[in-house]
Amino acid sequence: MKTMFWENNQLVLIDQTKLPHELVYYHCKTYKDVIHAIKTMKVRGAPAIGVAAAFGMALAELEGVDLQKAGEEIKAARPTAVNLFWAVDRVLKSDNALEEALKMYDEDIETNKAIGKHGAEVIDDGDTILTHCNAGALACVDYGTALGVIRAAFEEGKKIKVICDETRPFCQGAKLSVFEMQQENIPVKLIVDNAAARMMQTGKVNKVVVGADRVAKGGIANKIGTLMVALAAKRFDVPFYVAAPKSTFDFENSIYDTKIEERDPNEVLYFGECRVAPEGTEVENPSFDIVPGDLITGIITEEGILEPF
Amino acid sequence: MKTMFWENNQLVLIDQTKLPHELVYYHCKTYKDVIHAIKTMKVRGAPAIGVAAAFGMALAELEGVDLQKAGEEIKAARPTAVNLFWAVDRVLKSDNALEEALKMYDEDIETNKAIGKHGAEVIDDGDTILTHCNAGALACVDYGTALGVIRAAFEEGKKIKVICDETRPFCQGAKLSVFEMQQENIPVKLIVDNAAARMMQTGKVNKVVVGADRVAKGGIANKIGTLMVALAAKRFDVPFYVAAPKSTFDFENSIYDTKIEERDPNEVLYFGECRVAPEGTEVENPSFDIVPGDLITGIITEEGILEPF
Repeated sequence: MKTMFWENNQLVLIDQTKLPHELVYYHCKTYKDVIHAIKTMKVRGAPAIGVAAAFGMALAELEGVDLQKAGEEIKAARPTAVNLFWAVDRVLKSDNALEEALKMYDEDIETNKAIGKHGAEVIDDGDTILTHCNAGALACVDYGTALGVIRAAFEEGKKIKVICDETRPFCQGAKLSVFEMQQENIPVKLIVDNAAARMMQTGKVNKVVVGADRVAKGGIANKIGTLMVALAAKRFDVPFYVAAPKSTFDFENSIYDTKIEERDPNEVLYFGECRVAPEGTEVENPSFDIVPGDLITGIITEEGILEPF
Repeated sequence: MKTMFWENNQLVLIDQTKLPHELVYYHCKTYKDVIHAIKTMKVRGAPAIGVAAAFGMALAELEGVDLQKAGEEIKAARPTAVNLFWAVDRVLKSDNALEEALKMYDEDIETNKAIGKHGAEVIDDGDTILTHCNAGALACVDYGTALGVIRAAFEEGKKIKVICDETRPFCQGAKLSVFEMQQENIPVKLIVDNAAARMMQTGKVNKVVVGADRVAKGGIANKIGTLMVALAAKRFDVPFYVAAPKSTFDFENSIYDTKIEERDPNEVLYFGECRVAPEGTEVENPSFDIVPGDLITGIITEEGILEPF
C-alpha cells in the first residue's frame, strides 16, 4: 500500500488522520491542496512530505504558477523537516517538475529498502524493538525508515517483537505504527509514552529505532518525546538508533538552530472528539525535540550506519 | 473542596473519573463500595486511598464483617500504594475503626499543610514548576502533597507558574491538576507527557515536584512516566523533588520489590469514549515506575526535607 500516487494529474494521498479506522484518499488538484494536506497532517513524516512537496511543485507547474513563489509557500507549510526544503529546491533546479517528482518518488522506496538492509544488521534474533511515532511506510512513499529496518529484519527471518508508544498528541504510534506492524504480522504491543522507560527498566526493550525530521550538527530533531525515549535508553544501556535518509541531513547548521513547530492547542486539549482538560486551559504544544548526539548509538542511512557526530 | 467526607454512616467521595466536566459524588454504603471506588479510580492518589481504606474498615465494622477479612480485601484493591496497607493495619490496631478513620482524615490535612510549609522553602519567586499526575488535594483529603507545596509557595506570595503534563493513560494531570490550579488562580499550562524534556531543554521548567505511592530503600514508586521526567530533570540540571507523607515510607523493603499494578488495556486503547488504536491491539499498561534515588534532589515530608537514600 503506497502512501501516495500520481494519477490523472492529481496527487492522491491516504488521509492519515482517518487511519486506522477508515481508509480515505485525499485528492490534491492544486499545489495549495498539497499545502493543506501537509499542514493538517493528512500526509506526514519527513520523507513523505518531501515527496508530496515535489508533487505540489508539479501541480504548481501545471497550474502555471510561478515555481519560486509556490516553493516558498510549500516550504512554509511545516518548518521543521529538512526534506520539505530539500525537495522544493531539487525541483527548482530541475528542468521538469513532474519528472523530478516521479524520480524522487521511486528513489524514496529504493532509499528506504537500502536503509532497511543496513539497519537489519544491528537487529538480533529475539530483539524487542521500541519505536516512537511513525517512521514507517506511511511516513514515506512506502516501506519506511525506522519501520523499514524492522521490516527488513523480519523479512530476513529474525524473530523480533515491536513495542510502539502511542506518541501523543497525534498518536501516530497507536494509529499508524501499530497498524503497519499488524498488516505485516509482526508481533506488536502498544504502550503509553509514559511507559517507555519502565519497559527498559524491566528489560522488556533491548533496542530503540526511530526516524528523524532533521539530522544536523550535534544531534537530530524528531517527534516530540524522542528525547525522553533517548534519555531512558541511555540510562538503561539500550542501543538507540536513528534511521534517516541523507535527504534529512543538514550539516551546515547546528541542530539547536532548528525551528521547532508549535502546533494547535486543540491537539492536546482533545483526543479525537473527546475533550480532556477543563475549559480555558492554556497549552504548549511543541511538535519536535532535539536529541543530542551523545544519546545516539548510530544513524542508519541508505549508505550505511554512521557513528554520530 | 474536600475529596471525601463522612456523612450519615456513609463515605461520600468525589467521583474523580467524572472531573473536570462534572462534579458527581459517589456514596459508599458498604466496605465493598469503597473497594470498588478504589479499583475504578473514583478515588485515587496514595494518601486519599489510605484514608478511604480506613473508612472502608469503619463501614465493615458497622456491617459486622470480620475486620481482618475486610482488611485483606481492601489491601488487594490496588497493590502499589503503601498507604492502603498502612491505613488498614492502623485501623486493625485501634479500638474503634470509625474514630481512627476520622482521626486519620484530620491528620491527612495537617500532614499536607506541613509538607507544603517545608516544601515552599525550596520554591523560589519566579519558578516554573512541572508536576506529573495529580498529587493534589484530590489525591488526599485536601490541600495535596506536591500541589500542596505549590499551594503553600503561592500562598506565601511567590510568583510561580505551573506546568502539568497530561499523564496518560488516565490523564490525571490534564483533568485534575490543571483543574485544581485553575480553582486557585495559579497560572498553569498543559503539555503532553512527551513534551516534558523539551520544556527543560528550552529552560522553561526550573523545578519538578511530584508525589509518591511508595518510598522505600533505593528510590520511590510513582505514577508511570515519573521516571522519564526524572531522567530529563537530571539531564538538564533541574531539581527534582518528591513530596510524600511518612505514611508512604516503607524502609524495610527495597523499592525494586514493589508490586507494580498492571491495569486494564482499555485505558490505553481508548481515551474517554474515543478509540485510538486498531482492533486487536495488544497492550502493556504498567501503572507505576521506579525512580532511583540518584535522580531525586530531596523528599519533602511533614517533618522536613530528607536527603534521599
